[in-house]
Amino acid sequence: MDFSIPVDIQTRLDDIRRFVEQELVPLESRLLAADWDGLTDALDEKRSQVQAAGWWAPNLPVGAGGTGASLVELGLISEELGRTPTGHYVFGCQAPDAGNAELLLLHGSEKQRDRYLVPLASGQIRSCFCMTEPEFAGSNPVQMGTVARREGDDYIIEGHKWFATAADGARFAIVMAVTNPDEAKHRRASMILVDCDQDGFSLERNIPVMGHPGSGYFSHGEVRLTQCRVPISQRLGEEGAGFIMAQERLGPGRIHHCMRWLGICRRVVELMCDYALTRQLNADTKLADTQIVQAWIAESAAELQSARALVLETAWIIQEKGFKAARDNVSMIKFITANTLQRIVDRAIQIHGALGVTDDTILSFWYREERAARIYDGPDEVHKLAVARHLLKARARAG
Amino acid sequence: MDFSIPVDIQTRLDDIRRFVEQELVPLESRLLAADWDGLTDALDEKRSQVQAAGWWAPNLPVGAGGTGASLVELGLISEELGRTPTGHYVFGCQAPDAGNAELLLLHGSEKQRDRYLVPLASGQIRSCFCMTEPEFAGSNPVQMGTVARREGDDYIIEGHKWFATAADGARFAIVMAVTNPDEAKHRRASMILVDCDQDGFSLERNIPVMGHPGSGYFSHGEVRLTQCRVPISQRLGEEGAGFIMAQERLGPGRIHHCMRWLGICRRVVELMCDYALTRQLNADTKLADTQIVQAWIAESAAELQSARALVLETAWIIQEKGFKAARDNVSMIKFITANTLQRIVDRAIQIHGALGVTDDTILSFWYREERAARIYDGPDEVHKLAVARHLLKARARAG
Amino acid sequence: MDFSIPVDIQTRLDDIRRFVEQELVPLESRLLAADWDGLTDALDEKRSQVQAAGWWAPNLPVGAGGTGASLVELGLISEELGRTPTGHYVFGCQAPDAGNAELLLLHGSEKQRDRYLVPLASGQIRSCFCMTEPEFAGSNPVQMGTVARREGDDYIIEGHKWFATAADGARFAIVMAVTNPDEAKHRRASMILVDCDQDGFSLERNIPVMGHPGSGYFSHGEVRLTQCRVPISQRLGEEGAGFIMAQERLGPGRIHHCMRWLGICRRVVELMCDYALTRQLNADTKLADTQIVQAWIAESAAELQSARALVLETAWIIQEKGFKAARDNVSMIKFITANTLQRIVDRAIQIHGALGVTDDTILSFWYREERAARIYDGPDEVHKLAVARHLLKARARAG
Amino acid sequence: MDFSIPVDIQTRLDDIRRFVEQELVPLESRLLAADWDGLTDALDEKRSQVQAAGWWAPNLPVGAGGTGASLVELGLISEELGRTPTGHYVFGCQAPDAGNAELLLLHGSEKQRDRYLVPLASGQIRSCFCMTEPEFAGSNPVQMGTVARREGDDYIIEGHKWFATAADGARFAIVMAVTNPDEAKHRRASMILVDCDQDGFSLERNIPVMGHPGSGYFSHGEVRLTQCRVPISQRLGEEGAGFIMAQERLGPGRIHHCMRWLGICRRVVELMCDYALTRQLNADTKLADTQIVQAWIAESAAELQSARALVLETAWIIQEKGFKAARDNVSMIKFITANTLQRIVDRAIQIHGALGVTDDTILSFWYREERAARIYDGPDEVHKLAVARHLLKARARAG
Repeated sequence: MDFSIPVDIQTRLDDIRRFVEQELVPLESRLLAADWDGLTDALDEKRSQVQAAGWWAPNLPVGAGGTGASLVELGLISEELGRTPTGHYVFGCQAPDAGNAELLLLHGSEKQRDRYLVPLASGQIRSCFCMTEPEFAGSNPVQMGTVARREGDDYIIEGHKWFATAADGARFAIVMAVTNPDEAKHRRASMILVDCDQDGFSLERNIPVMGHPGSGYFSHGEVRLTQCRVPISQRLGEEGAGFIMAQERLGPGRIHHCMRWLGICRRVVELMCDYALTRQLNADTKLADTQIVQAWIAESAAELQSARALVLETAWIIQEKGFKAARDNVSMIKFITANTLQRIVDRAIQIHGALGVTDDTILSFWYREERAARIYDGPDEVHKLAVARHLLKARARAG
Repeated sequence: MDFSIPVDIQTRLDDIRRFVEQELVPLESRLLAADWDGLTDALDEKRSQVQAAGWWAPNLPVGAGGTGASLVELGLISEELGRTPTGHYVFGCQAPDAGNAELLLLHGSEKQRDRYLVPLASGQIRSCFCMTEPEFAGSNPVQMGTVARREGDDYIIEGHKWFATAADGARFAIVMAVTNPDEAKHRRASMILVDCDQDGFSLERNIPVMGHPGSGYFSHGEVRLTQCRVPISQRLGEEGAGFIMAQERLGPGRIHHCMRWLGICRRVVELMCDYALTRQLNADTKLADTQIVQAWIAESAAELQSARALVLETAWIIQEKGFKAARDNVSMIKFITANTLQRIVDRAIQIHGALGVTDDTILSFWYREERAARIYDGPDEVHKLAVARHLLKARARAG
Repeated sequence: MDFSIPVDIQTRLDDIRRFVEQELVPLESRLLAADWDGLTDALDEKRSQVQAAGWWAPNLPVGAGGTGASLVELGLISEELGRTPTGHYVFGCQAPDAGNAELLLLHGSEKQRDRYLVPLASGQIRSCFCMTEPEFAGSNPVQMGTVARREGDDYIIEGHKWFATAADGARFAIVMAVTNPDEAKHRRASMILVDCDQDGFSLERNIPVMGHPGSGYFSHGEVRLTQCRVPISQRLGEEGAGFIMAQERLGPGRIHHCMRWLGICRRVVELMCDYALTRQLNADTKLADTQIVQAWIAESAAELQSARALVLETAWIIQEKGFKAARDNVSMIKFITANTLQRIVDRAIQIHGALGVTDDTILSFWYREERAARIYDGPDEVHKLAVARHLLKARARAG
Repeated sequence: MDFSIPVDIQTRLDDIRRFVEQELVPLESRLLAADWDGLTDALDEKRSQVQAAGWWAPNLPVGAGGTGASLVELGLISEELGRTPTGHYVFGCQAPDAGNAELLLLHGSEKQRDRYLVPLASGQIRSCFCMTEPEFAGSNPVQMGTVARREGDDYIIEGHKWFATAADGARFAIVMAVTNPDEAKHRRASMILVDCDQDGFSLERNIPVMGHPGSGYFSHGEVRLTQCRVPISQRLGEEGAGFIMAQERLGPGRIHHCMRWLGICRRVVELMCDYALTRQLNADTKLADTQIVQAWIAESAAELQSARALVLETAWIIQEKGFKAARDNVSMIKFITANTLQRIVDRAIQIHGALGVTDDTILSFWYREERAARIYDGPDEVHKLAVARHLLKARARAG
């Protein structure tokens, strides 16, 4: 066993952290006060710096426009980027574009890669992923109302999607639709590339989430597909393989999310400490001198560290043995880390008192935005039940 | 012992609940989509209906423009009004106006009552309460930087306040300021009536809270007092009595808040049930059929009911024996109920899944707005430590 | 509404508490060190004092050998008695004898009452209740393997029971057995009076619970019924009514248990305070001066008080409106109070440190013995699911 | 990074687990029913098997009578042994003998090693460690009342100790006593080897813990030292170095304990699964089919795995970088793992229902015995406050 991080990687992580602290954290107050359009120029400038530094798109191989990293390294980078809401965007590895690029890389035809992956990987365009539907419980992803009926060399797509993150301003969407309704339930859906400006694809609204509809990259779209005709050559991968491709995408995606959440946690623990060290309760006592605050800091640090140890182990298992070997671990880190995040942010708000609910710190942003962490990509409960069924089945077999 | 609610009061509560459900709940989507100005006409109309029904200002006696109620009854009414964010406003008993009116009634000179209480009680004007200061921990309310220096027949006030709820559009403020710096620390501050449009009183901003600066009644102001000169006759009550008057105001105020929170809890449990009863997980199973959701519903109901039983008992103790006899109970219901509220809203969001974080239900509004319940009027920890010190002292005496 | 306790009742409660503190608490160290037999003489003496004071068997009416009390009063008495493990026994209202006496009073024939109730009510004999079976989940009480087959004027009982509390030394048992296997599932079982010394009734062992088999009244028996022949006249109540009679017994029984648990909680909070007030951490600081301990004391007090408020309200509802009106409340207080008890005892142990796990205080006794509170009379989960189903059904009807 | 366990070590672990399951788990019912003396023959036989297999004393190097293992390996072995209460004893690495042997190895003179280490390492004798005192809070280990006064070439020890685990039957004790009262508080105490049969050393009682005084190895002694005269040559290590030596011993000791607790957790999760898989709730449904039980299984597994990942990482840090680099991690794993253990055992009892509180399974043994895990070697709170102070200090420096 060896838990050490190689020196060169640690150096890169330190450099990235410094960049995030010095260049991106100062943008937070603007992010909180303005909308997406007011921020794009500043972010474009930071993206250039990142590209110049050779840090761009660590999730993609060099040949595909990225700078390459193993899954464990990628997780460690994601942790640094998670320290501020714009980190991943500035490094060109933001959801859902990162996952979409990985799908195109694995399953795209040459033509699809030229048309979609090249500009996506370089940050020229954005994309979205249309899977979730308001009419069907996300906890059961094989249920789906969107249908792509074949007509000659085209699909005609009809459907209703929501929580298509960053659909506002996206150039294209990857749409999950039922193409083979008579197959086994895991073999019914396909992924289809749809240009967002084409007939029949309509972004109906940016869904107001936690009081804000958002805009641009920071938004979640509700999308209607009506008689949306696309050539069959727009299908990504095999017909009926959509669900399996989505699953494959999840393992690395969860590492990415979990490490991002842990990056938030680290930053939040630092904010707790910093505020506690400066806030006077009276002439003699700072908040940092009080036991309850100390207990919260220690509990937060310990929960963060134990979740982190498991996430890194899981990243390593996926990397070395593949997703299947890590399936239960992936579910566990999803719910463990999302709940750790919620608890830590909540404690930090309580420590900050009235200041904690204002937009004068980044805490209330995460309190609002990351409540969804326990819901998207499978709510806590779905993951728990999946883990339990596997353990029970294994135990029944062993018994 | 008698836990029954008299029939006539129960009838009034049932009528109020019906009104709230039919007239106010439908305004919620507008509240979530628009700002305060877009809602005032509708709310004014509802206020007229409330006045016509004889329900206006239940917290004030008939002679003072209200419709009168005991503290227990007031609590029960507050519970009904809490079911929707506009309830208390429409019934003319919204914070901070309700507490301010009670202060004027108890401590105001005839001139002060004419000038401020009469239009306030009738709903013609609004007011705010300037106590909290960003530079001092709210957990130690006797610390205060705002000073009212006497100069002839005037006070000259200098200070910095925040979380002056509803300052935007308020006609007057009750400002806590140190008038007697050399007295014992609980005898230093006084309450002073300040017109918001007068020189030296400046609303610097509506503080962005949980992503929104808000406006009008739904806002929290940051206020600067600079060379703000007011006649001594504007002082409310005795000089140096400000802190004690603020304390007196708290007992009933906490009943009001706790019962409002329990009204939210009841509505939220209903929303949980309603959604669970309609959401299909698959052809055979609804969300309401699943054990985890059932457990959450039952835990929520039980926590709600036990908190409620204690709040009502506490209201009764204040009513029959005075605030002092209920001091520890008041602290206990503050933290017990605020935490119950947070847990119940959180479970409801989890049950609603992605829908729960959107503004398509009222849940995310309460998730954001009521996080502060564990902070304002004394954070959880301050109340816990106070209760413990009293118990320990009593036990040390008894031992 | 009126939450006051009448003066005469409060005086009686104060007297009882003083008796418990002065006469029974000092027996605790002997209880922890010795077995039941070593304690009976002392307890018999205390019982005589209780009878002389006119406090005996408050759960039974005067005509039946008790001193009578309403359900609310009984709850308040049970709270005082709960402060020490021998309280209920010394006052002649210990489980399961109290419930058995109530069943005999309600359903017993004159002959049954003469033979069983009279000596039971006076404390001359003890009894047990044989319901739970190891082979069937207690969460589903209508499942039962014990059968009483009719043969002439007799029942022949065959069955296997456990957790027959206090079977060791009991004179008779009330045995639940299926007499009508073809009826609807709630109408199959009857209650049958069986003398413990009769052929076919065998106490196989005192079940070792938490490291101790116990003995005498402090024990839980495993019982085998083999060709156990009893006359039909030994049946208590109607044939097939056993399950309904058991349910009826539960409402008051749960009040009794919950108030007993709250009595434990009160005593434990006092022990927390007392120890914290004396234990020095260093020359300057006592445990009672530390925030974490203070927070635990306050949380314990608040949880205790809110559970208590709900239990008393529930007792009042049963008393005034009957069990059915209080059904969900009864479930809620069961799991709320049992969990409150567990948390409070656990915190007290942590405060006591190493001392807390020894038998030098009563804490570890309750930690062990009362873990079962969340299990017997329906585990937490069964009550939660029952409450949720009722709420959902009511809401579905209302919608 | 490399999270893999080398094949040869994994093979050894698998063999050990098989041995534990087949040879030691079956002894549990005897352990629960009998006292220590009734078990020694059986355990001696198992010890011979372990020695024959080459597994004896993995914590000691080959030259010192053990079979040697790195700290990470030792942790993994401790996890396997933790699965049953006799595991560590049978493998010759039970507390407190293991730690005492390590102290003798590091600090013992040749004569001390010959006299004490050789028979201890081979399992011929047992020992105890006398540190904790009833009069002083264990949370502040530098406070100590036991004094060793120098008189010529002897120490005269006076003191009162408790929780001397396994003192009953121990041949010698390592006694912490103040030898240098005027030094800085971390330099006052020394460790002194005292034969248990010598004048002035008296085992006053086996402390009844959770209802049992225990006996032999399974006991905790209260010890009185009265005019206990031992030659100065019996001092272990430098004078005044006792506290530092005790600290050094803690790092590896905590890994040992934490991995033992995780071994318990693994076994308990298996017991949960096995019981849930066999217990029928009704004809159609097993306990394992219910969501609440499934959620508990998954939560338990996830908490176990994340605690375990952090413990292994911590073992690796100690092994590679020394205790100091791992100091905060060591505190974190102590409270994280002890609490995980308590929660998992508690859930398992709830799943087992009435059976869970009996001695018919091993669960209630761990429920009782391991409640102390959150107390000994520093209660949760002490570790939390230590971690927080370090984090705050580091942050204050960094700021």
